[in-house]
Amino acid sequence: MDVSANKGGNGDAFVVGVDFGTLSARALVVRVSDGAEAGTAVSEYPHAVIDRELDGVELPPDWALQDPADYTGALAAAVPAAIRDAGIDPGQVIGIATDFTASTCMPVLADGTPLCQLPGLAGRPHAYPKLWKHHAAQPHADRINAVAHERQEKWINRYGGKISSEWQFAKALQLLDEDFELYQRADRWIEAADWIIWQLCGTETRNACTAGYKGIFQDGSYPSREYLAALDPRFAGFADSKLAHPIAALGARAGGLTPAAAALTGLPAGLPVAVGNVDAHVTVPAAGPVAAGKMVAIMGTSTCHVMNGQSMNGTDLAEVPGMCGVVDGGIVAGMWGYEAGQSGVGDIFAWFTQNGVPGEFAAEARRRGVSLQQLLDEKATAEPAGAHGLIALDWAGGNRSVLVDGRLSGAIVGLTLATTAPEIYRALLESTAFGTRMIIDTYSAAGVPVTELVVAGGLVKSAPLMQIYADVTRRPLSVIGSGQGPALGSAIHAAVAAGAYPDVPAAAAAMGRIDRDVYRPDPARADVYDELYAEYVRLHDYFGRGTNEVMHRLRAIRDGVRKVAR
Amino acid sequence: MDVSANKGGNGDAFVVGVDFGTLSARALVVRVSDGAEAGTAVSEYPHAVIDRELDGVELPPDWALQDPADYTGALAAAVPAAIRDAGIDPGQVIGIATDFTASTCMPVLADGTPLCQLPGLAGRPHAYPKLWKHHAAQPHADRINAVAHERQEKWINRYGGKISSEWQFAKALQLLDEDFELYQRADRWIEAADWIIWQLCGTETRNACTAGYKGIFQDGSYPSREYLAALDPRFAGFADSKLAHPIAALGARAGGLTPAAAALTGLPAGLPVAVGNVDAHVTVPAAGPVAAGKMVAIMGTSTCHVMNGQSMNGTDLAEVPGMCGVVDGGIVAGMWGYEAGQSGVGDIFAWFTQNGVPGEFAAEARRRGVSLQQLLDEKATAEPAGAHGLIALDWAGGNRSVLVDGRLSGAIVGLTLATTAPEIYRALLESTAFGTRMIIDTYSAAGVPVTELVVAGGLVKSAPLMQIYADVTRRPLSVIGSGQGPALGSAIHAAVAAGAYPDVPAAAAAMGRIDRDVYRPDPARADVYDELYAEYVRLHDYFGRGTNEVMHRLRAIRDGVRKVAR
Repeated sequence: MDVSANKGGNGDAFVVGVDFGTLSARALVVRVSDGAEAGTAVSEYPHAVIDRELDGVELPPDWALQDPADYTGALAAAVPAAIRDAGIDPGQVIGIATDFTASTCMPVLADGTPLCQLPGLAGRPHAYPKLWKHHAAQPHADRINAVAHERQEKWINRYGGKISSEWQFAKALQLLDEDFELYQRADRWIEAADWIIWQLCGTETRNACTAGYKGIFQDGSYPSREYLAALDPRFAGFADSKLAHPIAALGARAGGLTPAAAALTGLPAGLPVAVGNVDAHVTVPAAGPVAAGKMVAIMGTSTCHVMNGQSMNGTDLAEVPGMCGVVDGGIVAGMWGYEAGQSGVGDIFAWFTQNGVPGEFAAEARRRGVSLQQLLDEKATAEPAGAHGLIALDWAGGNRSVLVDGRLSGAIVGLTLATTAPEIYRALLESTAFGTRMIIDTYSAAGVPVTELVVAGGLVKSAPLMQIYADVTRRPLSVIGSGQGPALGSAIHAAVAAGAYPDVPAAAAAMGRIDRDVYRPDPARADVYDELYAEYVRLHDYFGRGTNEVMHRLRAIRDGVRKVAR
Repeated sequence: MDVSANKGGNGDAFVVGVDFGTLSARALVVRVSDGAEAGTAVSEYPHAVIDRELDGVELPPDWALQDPADYTGALAAAVPAAIRDAGIDPGQVIGIATDFTASTCMPVLADGTPLCQLPGLAGRPHAYPKLWKHHAAQPHADRINAVAHERQEKWINRYGGKISSEWQFAKALQLLDEDFELYQRADRWIEAADWIIWQLCGTETRNACTAGYKGIFQDGSYPSREYLAALDPRFAGFADSKLAHPIAALGARAGGLTPAAAALTGLPAGLPVAVGNVDAHVTVPAAGPVAAGKMVAIMGTSTCHVMNGQSMNGTDLAEVPGMCGVVDGGIVAGMWGYEAGQSGVGDIFAWFTQNGVPGEFAAEARRRGVSLQQLLDEKATAEPAGAHGLIALDWAGGNRSVLVDGRLSGAIVGLTLATTAPEIYRALLESTAFGTRMIIDTYSAAGVPVTELVVAGGLVKSAPLMQIYADVTRRPLSVIGSGQGPALGSAIHAAVAAGAYPDVPAAAAAMGRIDRDVYRPDPARADVYDELYAEYVRLHDYFGRGTNEVMHRLRAIRDGVRKVAR
């Protein structure tokens, strides 16, 4: 879709969607009538991911922090640039909405000031936002899960029986445990998704998506004081004092742009601001008509699989083993939203590209003017499926679904003296496709059939990877019609918050886009992948379901040795 | 030891030992009185290992051939060069002996001409010597083992219950199976170790070492006609027609140098030539005094563990599970010689160095003027033991001991997004040390205690690797006193064949050298390695003893897919 012929002409109405990713934020200017993308701009976070050291001091393993100044800075840079790129008048913008990685959460004062911005706290790791991929709260997640099962908390099964170390409660409990002083100084514990809205409209809000998926908000309440006290007596008041707030439906208006935020973004003060949202979930309406059973896989550094189930009537709710969560109105108000995920996908490919590929390939890529990953994609898929004799587990970043275990790790089996780097790379590509198939199979087995598979996110640019996913899942792959799915999804929510559409499904039907069945499975390759998938399942269950806890023990040995060495 | 001050002076007597390795041959000139090394020279094989294509035609997976003209060529180049390097007169040389990789075996005519040198056969893979690491005869080894167990052949337990695909019978059966015409044209099937002696003294001999370890010669005979017929009726006469020959003790005189061989080597015609020997076994006397329980690990591309047991009286013979073999006089006449091995050791490090290390490390190595492996050694061992959180299986080249299964493959478990190439490299180093510990433990459990561990071979140059072996095995490591163990061992046998010493132990005591306890285990590291070794053992048994045959299935899928694709 191209609006360049009449960029901003005719006084069309526009909305701005801003997608806060792991390393940068992207602003997208979208026409309200049809979703046409008029302009865009990206701003990188200067501090990126803080995972090695903070203020000159080495961080422990599995830590991942960010600097919240990077978020507001990106807003100030990307929004005006996108407006300029669109060639429209800021006055034509009728609303703004954002989405964020999650659970990325932080301790703040009652006025929203992040603790890390207070004098004297710049060197305190726990004062910073903990990025979604901060995995150091696993012992706390373990405790949360053990106590929940002990007490038979009803909500635990809404999360596949396990709360992730990536989420709000685990990260907050780690804060309490390791830096109680800071825990006490934090008036509020808030998702970055909601914090950024606070910066825009000056009032705290809490959105249904992060509250439900990341904050254990189910059936109208957070976990009880009794449960929290069982985790730690000092934690009893956590939800009441640091989380509690009315929950807003997705697409609702959070408030109007403050004068300060208007100055920051170049948009008019008072402009409607939608409540916060999560990058994965916000993408579903960007893929066009909303329907139960339509799974959208947002594939980037990690993959989120989000899907609406049947409408709410109590009996239609399914508890899928190992799902990340099922939340009432978690994706679209009025439907059960299901979420699953893979902790590492593009992250694994990038890790291998940086750490496992000899210089000759980098030289060839430079010579041919392609990226190293493009070159590997090409070389890896030149051989027939199964020719490498390898099988890998896609757990270098842990396993979110269906095992919900951040302490698992990656494995490769089948190496010979003839194995090449492109072959290992392909095995890693395939391993993530097997991980997705495992999720789809688990949903189907739990009575939530996946009727359509849509892919979105940065990895859809790799045609070889997409073909592997089609072959491995034996399903045609539809591709979201926008290269900026989350930002477009945010723009759709902005249009609803601005009152241009009655609800998100109506806006999605008008503004979302999908290309159907772009990749179709090849039966011969799918047969080979069936064999390899059977091997994947065996190793998955052996290493992931407790037969051999070697990955946990290796991690414990590693952490013990590193602690002594420090 | 340095004889340069009086190189060849005083009319001292010398012997020449020639070690035929995987990629080159080395000649060493040694003083008979004390084993001092006077001169040496190396000659590379022009065709190296033929494992990708022959005559422009691609070879199937797992093939590894050599060109026998490379062997004689290396003899012609290296021996005169070593004599020149020593600065002695060829007339001072009183004997010559050789050792070879094994089982490297080939089909020849009755006069010793290799079939690949016959007109019209240059393009026939089966006409060439099959190098020790040719692993394509695994189906034939499987059949050899199945039928042996079915018929309860007594000899099978002398080989840990399994005949390797690397040995004479498996490779010969593959020849019969896949190129029967060539099988029929072969008058003899002979080890390269014996073939090279035939080239030197003009007469066929068969040495006790290869006959016993690689040729299933036990208690005075080869496997019976009935057994061979059960493998294939056409195979019934194999041993009688193509192998049978008196077996010569190690250190015996095979004959005198022919005029042609004298011209080739620049040594006097009629010079005593010792019978053939194997590179690993010949090294034992090079490590000084011969003693039961003194295990010598010859560490190069692969590792052989050779050790003498008690003297022959029948009851002292132990059948060790998974050993490669126990042979009467297989290392030193009059003792039971035990052999175990690891198929891939240096090969695995070289594979990883070439295929798994990003260009930045190669650039740093160049800048600092060290080899990439030296750099990796240094970086890999900068962290404490266990800090990488990894465990690897050292089977990228298959597993010789204690599983005797060439179709196993390598595995790495514990990868995270923070894992670096040097960490993987270290896990691979450690995996081979765990493999050696598994062998030592298996020997001890079978009643053949290892009382001393001596290392030899090219890898002893890596101090970090040696320290890992000391820590993992919890044993002090003695190091052979010569950088050319096999060639020195051959020279010792030449001295015996020339009559300068009454037997090999006497020559070893005078000419061999050892540095005792060069590396001592560190108790703290050894404790961590105990934990990691326990993980190694679990994975070893899971993947290697039939619980999950995934490695076999992956290989079958690979081979099936590749066959279709060709």
